[in-house]
Amino acid sequence: MKYTEFDHPALLQEQQKCRAEYEALKTKGLKLDMSRGKPGKEQLDLVSDLLTVLSDPAECVSDGIEVRNYGALAGLPSAKALFAEILGCRPEECFVGGNASLVLMYDVISKAYTHGLLHSEKPWCRLERVKFLCPAPGYDRHFRITESFGAELITVDMTSDGPDMDQVETLVQDPEVKGIWCVPKYSNPDGIVYSEETVRRFANLKPAAPDFALMWDNAYCVHEFEGEFVPFPDILSLCREAGSPDMVFEFASTSKITFPGAGISVMAASEANQKYMQKLIGVQIIGYDKVNQRRHVKYLKNKTETLALMKRHAAFLRPKFRMVLDTLEREIAPLGIAEWQRPKGGYFVSVNTMDGIAKRTLALCKEAGVVMTSAGATFPYGIDPRDRNIRVAPTLPPVEELSQAMKVFCVSMRLAALENLLK
Amino acid sequence: MKYTEFDHPALLQEQQKCRAEYEALKTKGLKLDMSRGKPGKEQLDLVSDLLTVLSDPAECVSDGIEVRNYGALAGLPSAKALFAEILGCRPEECFVGGNASLVLMYDVISKAYTHGLLHSEKPWCRLERVKFLCPAPGYDRHFRITESFGAELITVDMTSDGPDMDQVETLVQDPEVKGIWCVPKYSNPDGIVYSEETVRRFANLKPAAPDFALMWDNAYCVHEFEGEFVPFPDILSLCREAGSPDMVFEFASTSKITFPGAGISVMAASEANQKYMQKLIGVQIIGYDKVNQRRHVKYLKNKTETLALMKRHAAFLRPKFRMVLDTLEREIAPLGIAEWQRPKGGYFVSVNTMDGIAKRTLALCKEAGVVMTSAGATFPYGIDPRDRNIRVAPTLPPVEELSQAMKVFCVSMRLAALENLLK
Repeated sequence: MKYTEFDHPALLQEQQKCRAEYEALKTKGLKLDMSRGKPGKEQLDLVSDLLTVLSDPAECVSDGIEVRNYGALAGLPSAKALFAEILGCRPEECFVGGNASLVLMYDVISKAYTHGLLHSEKPWCRLERVKFLCPAPGYDRHFRITESFGAELITVDMTSDGPDMDQVETLVQDPEVKGIWCVPKYSNPDGIVYSEETVRRFANLKPAAPDFALMWDNAYCVHEFEGEFVPFPDILSLCREAGSPDMVFEFASTSKITFPGAGISVMAASEANQKYMQKLIGVQIIGYDKVNQRRHVKYLKNKTETLALMKRHAAFLRPKFRMVLDTLEREIAPLGIAEWQRPKGGYFVSVNTMDGIAKRTLALCKEAGVVMTSAGATFPYGIDPRDRNIRVAPTLPPVEELSQAMKVFCVSMRLAALENLLK
Repeated sequence: MKYTEFDHPALLQEQQKCRAEYEALKTKGLKLDMSRGKPGKEQLDLVSDLLTVLSDPAECVSDGIEVRNYGALAGLPSAKALFAEILGCRPEECFVGGNASLVLMYDVISKAYTHGLLHSEKPWCRLERVKFLCPAPGYDRHFRITESFGAELITVDMTSDGPDMDQVETLVQDPEVKGIWCVPKYSNPDGIVYSEETVRRFANLKPAAPDFALMWDNAYCVHEFEGEFVPFPDILSLCREAGSPDMVFEFASTSKITFPGAGISVMAASEANQKYMQKLIGVQIIGYDKVNQRRHVKYLKNKTETLALMKRHAAFLRPKFRMVLDTLEREIAPLGIAEWQRPKGGYFVSVNTMDGIAKRTLALCKEAGVVMTSAGATFPYGIDPRDRNIRVAPTLPPVEELSQAMKVFCVSMRLAALENLLK
């Protein structure tokens, strides 16, 4: 029976019961972290061979390049080929970076501000105002990059097909709107896969700004944990076919394929963009770590082997996601106090509670020793206007801990809902 | 006998002889690269154990931090301690970066432009003009960073004690002068070690700009190839003692200790600067590659072991530098057409020819298959006003190739000098 259908005495009785459950959990003195999309230790151990895959100095030459020495700004050709195969783009469209695709995203925005992009009339720091579209709930680190440069962040609603494209198509008619952040496959945090129609409409956008940047963070491109690999269209080809080859910058990394802190990353963009950006990037670095690129190419080999490895990651992730989703289904669904997607990939479950209780839920969680991503973090400026979105990151804790944490989470949410209904 | 003392017929005869030598060398079809300060293959092989030093997943925890996963923005405490010991500063003053200290230098300048430094009144992009001091000859990549942001580059003369401090002290009275590029030990390219007096005067600078940045690239801090390790003052302490703790940013890396393309780097700065900068850097990265930091700490261990390794590098470098310096001494010194330092560390020999023949010398070298750093590269905007400075990078080619290359270089310089004298 739904809480909203409870009468006042029933709510009070439920609150008492719930409070007792909460206090019992609190006495356990838990200390659990579900705040970040960190892979678990078993996933790190799964790829241990990466540590030793490159042990012979004789193998430190790739495509005629001595990987230990300086040079090769855009990365090893073999690393470009690996990412191109995974993303479906061309090797010459790939710039292979270091351990963080975030750095490459930051670089695009940073250089747009200081130097302008390929089709900019002037650097963005010379403009009176820059606006950036932020489909929300979304990834806080994306939003923070543009916020840190003083851009005005505009929230775009998410639908089960991706960002609301009617809103996007209207908003890009404003020449001050300079770009949008997207996580097209298993979006962070909803786990939504953009529909073909959404992707097509993105490629066919005709923004008023000539230097509009479609920031396409394909962070979870091969990250299914339920079912088979889901092919996904190559946004670079689609943009090229739509006559806007230079509008898109796509990003990916091996952070959730090999080591989160020591992987390799890629920025895929048109050859014209590559030429322009590499001239700027060449001022700041001679080239990213090619030894680690070589290590990754030897270890991952190709898309087929990479997908096989992802199946092994999935075997660790699936029970964790199922635990979260099944617990929500069992404990929360009947009460009608929250909704969520059932993602088949990615790193998060996004829970939308009834309005106005997300912050309180997480405060209660924290009090009972369970840290989750701060409420609001998934919205521009960290402010969720309806105070309802909670990002659950189930990947780091072992299943047993997760089970404890989910108990705390559910009872906290129930308590918060009851407080709200009893106000 | 000096060329300048030759009479006209003697010059013509010498030119004919020289031309014949040059043509003979040209027929060899050489293809030698002395353009960049790249370590040689034998140096890469020297540190091969770095590839396998971290092979056990159980050793992937350092100071309680799982190095394979996300986190630890400023780097591993053990890596900070290693750099602090080498530089003589405090571990908490160290931010440990990725494979390129250049990125950290770029970040300081880039963020000064977009956000301002700790004591900036406004971001540099909001100022009408920014001037930056460039002791020259110097490192082209330094100059290019500030040039790429539109700063006006002001040349400061180099003396055998470091930059001309009278000039520096006068120039910093201009509030538009926002910083200076320094390579204090075995300067690039001269190989000059700044005198104690110079270092002391730097620490005691009282620039008009409150956000003046002393960019202290200690790239060759342990890079002696002749004689014993030369201790060098810690600029951070000196600036602190002089009451300007936040004026200095010091940089170093293992690029010429382990692998040039896959080392680790450090930005050392006051704790106040660290706090301010890390807030900005935290927007662009969750943390640099800690697996590689762990690898380096395991491999290098401490300063003593690092210095022992540098002795082994020196054994490869010494014959190369001696070959260059002895050849110059033998072939060029008697002719009075060039001067140079005899560095005991670093990666270059800097040759000052008679005025007006550096470009021509290098064009002749190139024609005969020997590529050197472009003439002018060691000066702001790539323009050497006296067209005389040539940076020789002897470290990459094997000694036999170097001997060939030096023959080409010397005969090219003689030819260029003769052409000039016969004009």
